[in-house]
This record gives sequence, C-alpha cells and structure tokens, in this order.
Amino acid sequence: MDFQINPQIIASGRGPDLSAAAGLIQRGETTATALLVQSLAAADAPACQHAFVRRFDAQARAAAMAVDHAHDAGAPVPPLAGLAVSIKDLFDVAGQPTTAASAVMADTEPAAADCPAVARLRAAGAALVGHTNLSEFAFSGVGINPHHGTPVNPVTQVMNATPRVPGGSTSGGGVSVSAGAAWAALGSDTGGSIRIPAALQGLVGFKSTQRLVPLDGAVPLSTTLDTACAITRSVRDAVLVHGILAARTPRPLARPLGALRLAVVQTVMLDGLDADVARSFEQALTLLRAAGAQIEELPLAPLNELANLQAQGGFAAAESWAWHRHRLAEREHLYDPRVAVRIRRGEAISAADYLDLVAARRRWIATVESQLASFDAVLSPTVPMVAPPLAPLIGSDPRFFAINALLLRNPSVVNMLDGCALSLPCQAPGQMPVGLMVWAPALADDTVLGVAQVIETTLAAAFHGHL
Amino acid sequence: MDFQINPQIIASGRGPDLSAAAGLIQRGETTATALLVQSLAAADAPACQHAFVRRFDAQARAAAMAVDHAHDAGAPVPPLAGLAVSIKDLFDVAGQPTTAASAVMADTEPAAADCPAVARLRAAGAALVGHTNLSEFAFSGVGINPHHGTPVNPVTQVMNATPRVPGGSTSGGGVSVSAGAAWAALGSDTGGSIRIPAALQGLVGFKSTQRLVPLDGAVPLSTTLDTACAITRSVRDAVLVHGILAARTPRPLARPLGALRLAVVQTVMLDGLDADVARSFEQALTLLRAAGAQIEELPLAPLNELANLQAQGGFAAAESWAWHRHRLAEREHLYDPRVAVRIRRGEAISAADYLDLVAARRRWIATVESQLASFDAVLSPTVPMVAPPLAPLIGSDPRFFAINALLLRNPSVVNMLDGCALSLPCQAPGQMPVGLMVWAPALADDTVLGVAQVIETTLAAAFHGHL
Repeated sequence: MDFQINPQIIASGRGPDLSAAAGLIQRGETTATALLVQSLAAADAPACQHAFVRRFDAQARAAAMAVDHAHDAGAPVPPLAGLAVSIKDLFDVAGQPTTAASAVMADTEPAAADCPAVARLRAAGAALVGHTNLSEFAFSGVGINPHHGTPVNPVTQVMNATPRVPGGSTSGGGVSVSAGAAWAALGSDTGGSIRIPAALQGLVGFKSTQRLVPLDGAVPLSTTLDTACAITRSVRDAVLVHGILAARTPRPLARPLGALRLAVVQTVMLDGLDADVARSFEQALTLLRAAGAQIEELPLAPLNELANLQAQGGFAAAESWAWHRHRLAEREHLYDPRVAVRIRRGEAISAADYLDLVAARRRWIATVESQLASFDAVLSPTVPMVAPPLAPLIGSDPRFFAINALLLRNPSVVNMLDGCALSLPCQAPGQMPVGLMVWAPALADDTVLGVAQVIETTLAAAFHGHL
Repeated sequence: MDFQINPQIIASGRGPDLSAAAGLIQRGETTATALLVQSLAAADAPACQHAFVRRFDAQARAAAMAVDHAHDAGAPVPPLAGLAVSIKDLFDVAGQPTTAASAVMADTEPAAADCPAVARLRAAGAALVGHTNLSEFAFSGVGINPHHGTPVNPVTQVMNATPRVPGGSTSGGGVSVSAGAAWAALGSDTGGSIRIPAALQGLVGFKSTQRLVPLDGAVPLSTTLDTACAITRSVRDAVLVHGILAARTPRPLARPLGALRLAVVQTVMLDGLDADVARSFEQALTLLRAAGAQIEELPLAPLNELANLQAQGGFAAAESWAWHRHRLAEREHLYDPRVAVRIRRGEAISAADYLDLVAARRRWIATVESQLASFDAVLSPTVPMVAPPLAPLIGSDPRFFAINALLLRNPSVVNMLDGCALSLPCQAPGQMPVGLMVWAPALADDTVLGVAQVIETTLAAAFHGHL
C-alpha cells in the first residue's frame, strides 16, 4: 500500500488504518480483494501463529469480491469496504461453531445465525476472516491459552525482545490487528479484555458503554459487565466501528484540547507503575499540558472500596458460575485449571450476597459519578506495565495470578462504573507500547471518543514534529 | 357534591371520580378545601378504621388551600386540583417516617425528602392525606395486618355481609379510595398488590410497566417486580395518575371495540373461579361480544411453567431476604410470622439459582410475548374469587396461605411478564365486586389503558341502559 500516511497513525506505529484503506478502495486506488489477499497472507505468517482458532477465508474472499463487483457497477462502497475484520471466538458466526477457545465447547454445533454484533459488521461490508483465540472463556488479562497455544505479542519482533504476552482476553484479536491480518477485531471487555491487548500491543481499544451493543449470541463471562466492542488501529477507526456495532451515529466531542476538563486519578491507578509506563504516561501528560491541556489531580478515594466490594469474586464469579456450573460438574477435566478455580469462587455466593453487590455497585457508581461530574474525562495508564515476558507466566500460577490482577486493576474500574473507556498508545516512537486510557461514566462515549481523538492528534504532532 | 355523574362511574358504583371532582374545582363549582374537608371526614369515619397508619391532615389542608388561593388569583388549577391522595406506607414522604406498616421499622427516622413518585403527585397538586396501611412489608394479597389492624372491605357495609378482607397488599390504599377518604391511592404492585384490592373493592387498579415509574425512596419487596402505581375510581383517573407518576403523556389507544383483538387465556387463569366471578366475568364477555368485540380463546400453555420457575420462592423470596436478612437476624420477634416465613425462603437461594431465574424469566417472557403478538390485550378475571370473609383467614395459617396463593395467582403472571395490567369492575350493579383484568406485555400501557376505557364505557352503557 502506497499512500500518504495520516499523522495520527504514526503515534501507534501500526501502519495505515481501516479508514485510510477504505478511502483507497472508495477512490479506486486499490480493491477490497487486493487488500484482503494481503490480510490473509498476514494471517498465514508466523507473527499470527495461534491468533486464530478457525478461519473463514473463502467467505472473506467472497465478501471482498462482492464489494469490488458492486463498486465496479457503480454502487457505493460500504463503510467497512470489504476489509478484513476478525471475530473473537465468543461471538456466533452463522455456520461456524463458537467455542470460547475452550476444549469444553469443542463439540459445539455450528451457529444457526450471526449474533447481532457480527451481523452488523457483516452488513457494513466486513470480510470476516476468522474466529480469534482468547484466554479460555475470556478469563484473564494475560492471554495465555493452554489448548490453542498463546499468540505472541508482535512487539516482540519489533522490539527484538524476549517473547511477550499479547494481553487478553482478546489476545488473538489484538494480534490479528497488530500483525496485519485484520483492520479491526471484534472482542469483548469484561474487566479490560479489549483495552489490555490494545495497550500491550500499541493499538486502540474502545470499551463502549455496555448497553449500547447487544450481547445476544455471545458466550457470557459476566452478564453484568461484558461489553461487545473492538480493537482498531486508530481512534477514528474506533469511532467508525463503534457506530456500526451500536447502530448509531457517534458524534465525538469536537473541542480544542485547552477547553477540556481532564483529571488524573490518584487513587489505585498510579500505584506501582513500571518505569516504561511511568515515563510514557508522564511524558504524554507533559506534551498535552504543553499543548494547552488543563489536567487536574483527582483523589477519587472510592476506588479504594472496590477490593472489598468484590471480595467474593464479584459479578464475574457469580455470573460465570451460574453459566458454567452444569458444564463444570460434567467436564471439569477439560477446563484450564486457572479458569476453573476462578469460576468456582461463584459457588459460595448467595442470592442475597449477589443482590447486595448489585445495590452496592449502584451506590458506588453514584458516588464516583458525582466526583467526576466536573470533568469531561479521566486519563490513566491503561495497565501499570508494558507487556511482560510470556514464559514465566506459563510456568508459575502465583506469578500468573499476580500479573493478571495487575493487568485488570485499572481497566476493570471502568466496567464496575458501567462507564466507557478508550486506550490509545502514548509512547514515543521506538518505545514499548504503553496505553493511555481516556475514561468517563456511562453514556459519555462521544466525549471519550472526542477527547481521545484530540489526544491522538496532539501526541502524533508532538512525536512527529519534535522528537 | 351535586353534579352530573359520568356514566363510566356507574359501573364501579364508587361515586364521582377524581377527574370529575377536578373539573368542578376548575369550573369554580366547588373548592379544593371543601372537597378535602369531606375526604378528611370520610377518613375519620368507621369505614376507614385501620386504613391509615398516620395522617397528614394539616399539610393536606394547606395544599388544598394553596390550590384555591392560586385559583382565586387566576392561576390554573393543577392536574390533581388539591384533592386528597393517599400514600402507601412504603413511600417516603418528607418529614414522615416510612414504616411499611411493620413493628420492625416503627423507630425509623422521618424521611428527609419525598420519594420521586410522591414528589410527582405533590407537584401535580395532590393533597397528601396520610400513609395507608398494608400487609406488613407488602407481603400477601389478603391485606391482614396484625400490628395496625386490618381495614375491612367497604363492600361489607354495602352488601350487608360478614366482614370481608380488603385485599392487599395495598389494603388501606384501596379502602381510602372506596370509603371516600382519597380520590386516588399511591401503592405498589409486586404480584397484584394494586389490582387485588381494586378487584375486591370495585375499584380500578393500574399496574403500569415497571420501568416507567421510579422506585427510589420506597421500601422494596422485590426490586425486580415492584411497581409504583395507583388505585383510582375510573379508568380515566388511572390515565391521569399514571401520566403524573410516569412523568409522561399517556395516549390511550383510541380504537372501537370491534377493531380490537382480544384474547381470554385458558391456562391457569380460569381455574376454580367462584360462582360470582364466573358469572360476572362471563356476563362481561357476553356484553362485550354483543357490542362487537372479537374475543378469542388462547391456550398460552407457558403459564403452566410458572410454578416450577418460582419453586424456590422466586424474586420476592431472594430479593426480600437480601433486604431483610440483617433486620430479621436482630428483630425476628417483631415480624408477622406469616411474613418472616416467606422472607426466609430466600436464604436457600444461591446467586446461580437467582441468575438462572433471571435467565429463565427472560426466555419465558420472549415465549409469552410471541404467543400474544397477534392480540392487543388479554382479558382475565383479576382474581378467582370475590372478597372472602376476614375472620377465618385471621385464625388459620393454612387457609390464609391457600387464599393468598389464589389471590396472587392471576395478577402475578403479569409481574413475571414485566407487563402492564388494569383491573376494572365488571359486575352488574348490586353484585359483589369482580375485577376484569386487561393485560399485555411490557410498554403496552397505552393499549391497556385504551382497551380498558372502551370496556368501561361499554359495560357502563350496558348496565345503565339495559339492566
């Protein structure tokens, strides 16, 4: 692909984005089929090993070709322009089994129909390239999968480093995008599963407000917290794909940086940052302030309450136990033990405990929303570390659970808030990817998207112009 | 009061309705204060014994006077015109304790503010006359209260019969309206608590779709099923009060009887009708058919599944246990034992059981909604019996629980459906009150109100013109 690169894209170091590729097709400078061939080749390459659990190449080619033929005949190019989009193996795709990257569901019947999220992508002209790998049943922010293998974070190659975790649970979805096999990845986010791989791989992950995208036809982890959403290469692609998934027209807040009221939350979310994250996050704040941003420190003490609130395992434990208990009784040997032990925490939760949690969450949300009321959005590090090496986490349960808890810590705050959040890369070129999370309460999606857009543009200009 | 009686009111035998009284005030033919004096006198009369647990006479007088003074000064009369409205002792009224007609909450502090439902009534010009009695914590459809006494169904006097139960749980609310102490009663309906007293006392009870009226500031029974709604004397009053409680403008379906598609559900809801109910219900169907109504028999077999679905006690058990468990541990001796035993059923319900119930309900609703899709509304007897004598139910637990289950049987179907339902009197003049329930799925409120309106008019014309 040979076209002028949007400065926004430089920040991510991830090459051209979906919007740029769709523009090329619209202008007749390339075809959907030509770009799909490149995507499928990338999916075959070593960088994508373990990223997919099944591929839909023939259907994807047919979808791209249909776009090209219609375009030749004078029809408009659809929003997703016949471009490759990957689907987390939680979402029903007509004619394919949905297995949650598990062994437990390996014998599942093919789905009769697309789930609504997939149907909307398909109707918008996506070429669905395959079901992507994940942490079994979407548990864990690390991305390790003992059945299908663990896709390696592509930054490993770029940075010439030891193999790093991809982040999860949308591990394969993230890799499909960062390795060039897809322009966007449909995934889910229950405690960070879209934002963590985006942060660790230098991509954009937007967790919209939960109620905006239907969850029917998706294997649940937590019916209260699960959100269907996507990983993309740029904020404008996040806007585009979110509009399709939510069947609405987002209107990102268009306000200059200096007119925004931004906060950096001090409680919990800045604890124990590793050196890379601390440096990149501080550097991003410095650049944004230099460009006119007013960024205040906000204590937000109620974040201290979350550990207690979820001491029994929270919504994920109660709701996953409800869904899995009969399967677990029959097939426990097929579960990843690290997943089974987390599901089993739900067994001890009574209906009254659960209802107390629902009520406590409602009160907690009201308190946090009132403390955020004078800000447009909050800025936090998405996760406190860059992608950690993979091997030690495969070998050690305590290390795995410790890292997993750290990866989920910041993003899961937004799920408990019923809010929305976008993670975008904030590191300088040549550094390990670090995610900057822009977040806000429920239904502030267009504000978060708009704030993220101006931040992306500001950082791209700074890194491109001055470093 | 001396004005032409609306023919619609004759069906209920309950005298003029709120809309008529408000019209008198608007036209200057009487004053809010004059009518309030009558209401307060009715509240003092023997027929209202045990109907109120506390009275707000001074504030009510001030509210009526304020309407009159404003009217004198040329201001418009507000929708509720300074007329008496009673409040079930579950809803916060500023400056008053809310005690759920229990001994457990007798030492509750006065509420700091009106709950939204009360605030909306007050803002619409209601004169709040008092907190009304109920089955403790709104449990039971019978209406017996061991702490405050049980208000006797006013039909007892009219029919010269042995004392009859008022129906519950909005027992005092119903009596306040039927005995003339209020023009409308704010209550709650979790399994029929608005519709049962309406049916047994010859009044109108409209349980709107749950989500339409806020429940904040109300003592909960079941957070899933509780609905804030009202008892009135006519369907047009139900429309008026619903619009105020839901802060919306209802547009009742305006379609002639012959253009409606109505069903009579055969499963469960016609079982074991007593002779009065069977006769009045059949007579009403005959009159409606004679007036052009097309009424089909509909099996609706999924109603058979409800008993199993709620075998552990359902939402009320799980959710009331969550709310009461700490109080019950400390103060069980203060609870009505018939209430405590029902709350305790929730102790054995696990979070997974509860979540299974939530999911099963969702599937059940989808099935029932699909089977009702070709009808505007369903007609059923609200309850299978006329008001039973009170004394035997005070004396015998088995008899009490058997009657209670029968009273809740039909109305609670609509709560499980998340639907809406209006009970209106359908008996001929001089007969014991029998409720005809018009019901439909969620958000069909305006259809139910419109169908009920045309039925009320048709029955009134039939009874007035031909009997």
